[in-house]
Amino acid sequence: MTDIISVIAPINMAVIKYWGKRDEKLIIPLNDSVSGTLDPKVMCAKTSVCARPVFEEDELWLNGKKESFTSERLQNCLKKIRELANEQKSVDEEFLKFKVHICSENNFPTAAGLASSAAGYACLVTALAKLYKVKTDISALARIGSGSACRSVYGGFVRWYAGSNPDGSDSIAKPVVDSSHWPDMRVLVLVIADTKKHTSSTKGMKTTVETSELMKHRIQVSVPSRIEKICEAIVKKDFPTFAELTMKDSNEFHAVCLSAFPPCIYLTNTSLKIIEMVHYYNNICGSIKVAYTFDAGPNACLYLLEEEVPKILSVIKYFFPFSSENFIKGLKAPPIKEFPIESHIYKSAAEKDLINYIIYTKVGEGPIVLKDGPHLLNEHGKPLS
Amino acid sequence: MTDIISVIAPINMAVIKYWGKRDEKLIIPLNDSVSGTLDPKVMCAKTSVCARPVFEEDELWLNGKKESFTSERLQNCLKKIRELANEQKSVDEEFLKFKVHICSENNFPTAAGLASSAAGYACLVTALAKLYKVKTDISALARIGSGSACRSVYGGFVRWYAGSNPDGSDSIAKPVVDSSHWPDMRVLVLVIADTKKHTSSTKGMKTTVETSELMKHRIQVSVPSRIEKICEAIVKKDFPTFAELTMKDSNEFHAVCLSAFPPCIYLTNTSLKIIEMVHYYNNICGSIKVAYTFDAGPNACLYLLEEEVPKILSVIKYFFPFSSENFIKGLKAPPIKEFPIESHIYKSAAEKDLINYIIYTKVGEGPIVLKDGPHLLNEHGKPLS
Repeated sequence: MTDIISVIAPINMAVIKYWGKRDEKLIIPLNDSVSGTLDPKVMCAKTSVCARPVFEEDELWLNGKKESFTSERLQNCLKKIRELANEQKSVDEEFLKFKVHICSENNFPTAAGLASSAAGYACLVTALAKLYKVKTDISALARIGSGSACRSVYGGFVRWYAGSNPDGSDSIAKPVVDSSHWPDMRVLVLVIADTKKHTSSTKGMKTTVETSELMKHRIQVSVPSRIEKICEAIVKKDFPTFAELTMKDSNEFHAVCLSAFPPCIYLTNTSLKIIEMVHYYNNICGSIKVAYTFDAGPNACLYLLEEEVPKILSVIKYFFPFSSENFIKGLKAPPIKEFPIESHIYKSAAEKDLINYIIYTKVGEGPIVLKDGPHLLNEHGKPLS
Repeated sequence: MTDIISVIAPINMAVIKYWGKRDEKLIIPLNDSVSGTLDPKVMCAKTSVCARPVFEEDELWLNGKKESFTSERLQNCLKKIRELANEQKSVDEEFLKFKVHICSENNFPTAAGLASSAAGYACLVTALAKLYKVKTDISALARIGSGSACRSVYGGFVRWYAGSNPDGSDSIAKPVVDSSHWPDMRVLVLVIADTKKHTSSTKGMKTTVETSELMKHRIQVSVPSRIEKICEAIVKKDFPTFAELTMKDSNEFHAVCLSAFPPCIYLTNTSLKIIEMVHYYNNICGSIKVAYTFDAGPNACLYLLEEEVPKILSVIKYFFPFSSENFIKGLKAPPIKEFPIESHIYKSAAEKDLINYIIYTKVGEGPIVLKDGPHLLNEHGKPLS
């Protein structure tokens, strides 16, 4: 029995993108968004927290490194949870005065450019809410830390409602379907070899909202119509519709970024080649079997059903030759099933080392409280490693 | 004295792009567009035509190669001009029955991916209209051959009005200002080393119109407002406004292409690096000194005033190192004036051989009839070479 709370939480991959805030401070988005939560057993953030009278100050360790506790977003999350605990009298007044120790790490390289902050904040607020025994909408707390983190507090497919209240109280996430609804939904994350530094999301969003003419149309027309359709497609397990909307939204998101001034550009030649590859495969199949989507970076995320995995791996291997046994990480990959590529146009396209590795995963559960650890903090409330 | 008519005609580089037709057959665009006509003494198409009773069939030679005369667009142009000549009785009835010989060539490599069809059709219709002595709006004739060719029939800056008549009769080009209006306006065409085959403009436009949500906003909102502003900026010689609108329209055009399904992608990593370079230079200068614009391909076209040329060449040389004397073609380039590049962020950016060569040119005159030749056809009406 310990007073340490440990939680693991998943990353999520948007199929209708969040891009642009109507309130910068409260992190309230301009539009609803939808994402798939990716199995936390494959990729997750893990956080341990505890609060004790002997702690002299709030302390934070991130991926094995002591970090400053001054981040405004982190402070906001902790403050909000302590306020709720105070209102709800969920813990002793004394407990509220204790300093906290927080230790967090990701089980995947942050350098991969995956949305680690979403998993991190979903994890943190879940752990803190449990520590302070508060009853509240966890997604709203996570949102304060990092917008899209609010979608990582549920499994399955999740919709983040923009809401309309000025205080953001209705800007919360809700499940569309849980992780058992579409059990054969799989995800391949193609981690691209690219060292280019990109515009941060926060800055990119701001520039886009302030300067892109097209952004207005996206917010007012495209997204509202697409959101309803994709939720319906998910409920009905209508893959072709789901996939088409996913690709269209990804392309539109990058299009509005490109129409910002100066333009925000996240896709590279390799990303574009992946887009081409997916359209090529879908064309040959005669219907949409795979969807790509790209966040604010060059890595591709492919949504597809389990039965397509052996074939698409063959196609990926053709366009982006790989040999290493360790190239595919995550879930156990099925044997590659050769898929005939006939077009001579593409013969010259093959080029090695454009993709670093692939993570094979699936739509999975939300955060999990690890009742019996293992924790990241030792009995003194200090990091283990 | 000969019956051979020879004409040279310029290419043009749009600053507000033409993308999307409201009538596929008549080549009527969805929106107005504006371009600068590039000095035909640097880059041009040259065409010689003649019609004689002894010719047994209509014949065409393009860049030294015999070509089929069956192209629908070519046929449409010739048919339209003969109809006009018949209506106007501008030539004998006999003359209308003569077959024509047409010989045309570009003085720049077509492989450069520059809009050679615009110069080609502007040249052809100017020559044919002269041959058949018709009085008509030459731009409307050129449009039937290749949409943007209509802008190449005038020098200076030219606006192509979309018009509203179903028959396209008011879809014509008119000069905004002539070539003497802004004499220090210069253009650098950066020809990129890239062998990738791109979606043709005709196909890309069609896909975009049919599938892009954002295209509607571009046509209805963005372009109409931008067109008026850029024409005003040209008349006032307000470079920063002209340049900002040019860059925004180029980015928006590529954005709508990216939002098509499947997406049409014309920019490469090298194009993106040029965009970055220009924003970097303008930032350091503290005001907009250079504008980039990209047609449906990766080559960049930079608009700038003459005084900036020595400095921007230094910046280009830093980002895209070149050494060959022959790297800059066209007008005589001024000596490079070293421009200090301080940012360490960009130190690693330099990479050779991404740009094949640069064409240095300026905004110039429209088509020129070569009264005394030299012609491309010999006394027998056959190609010289």
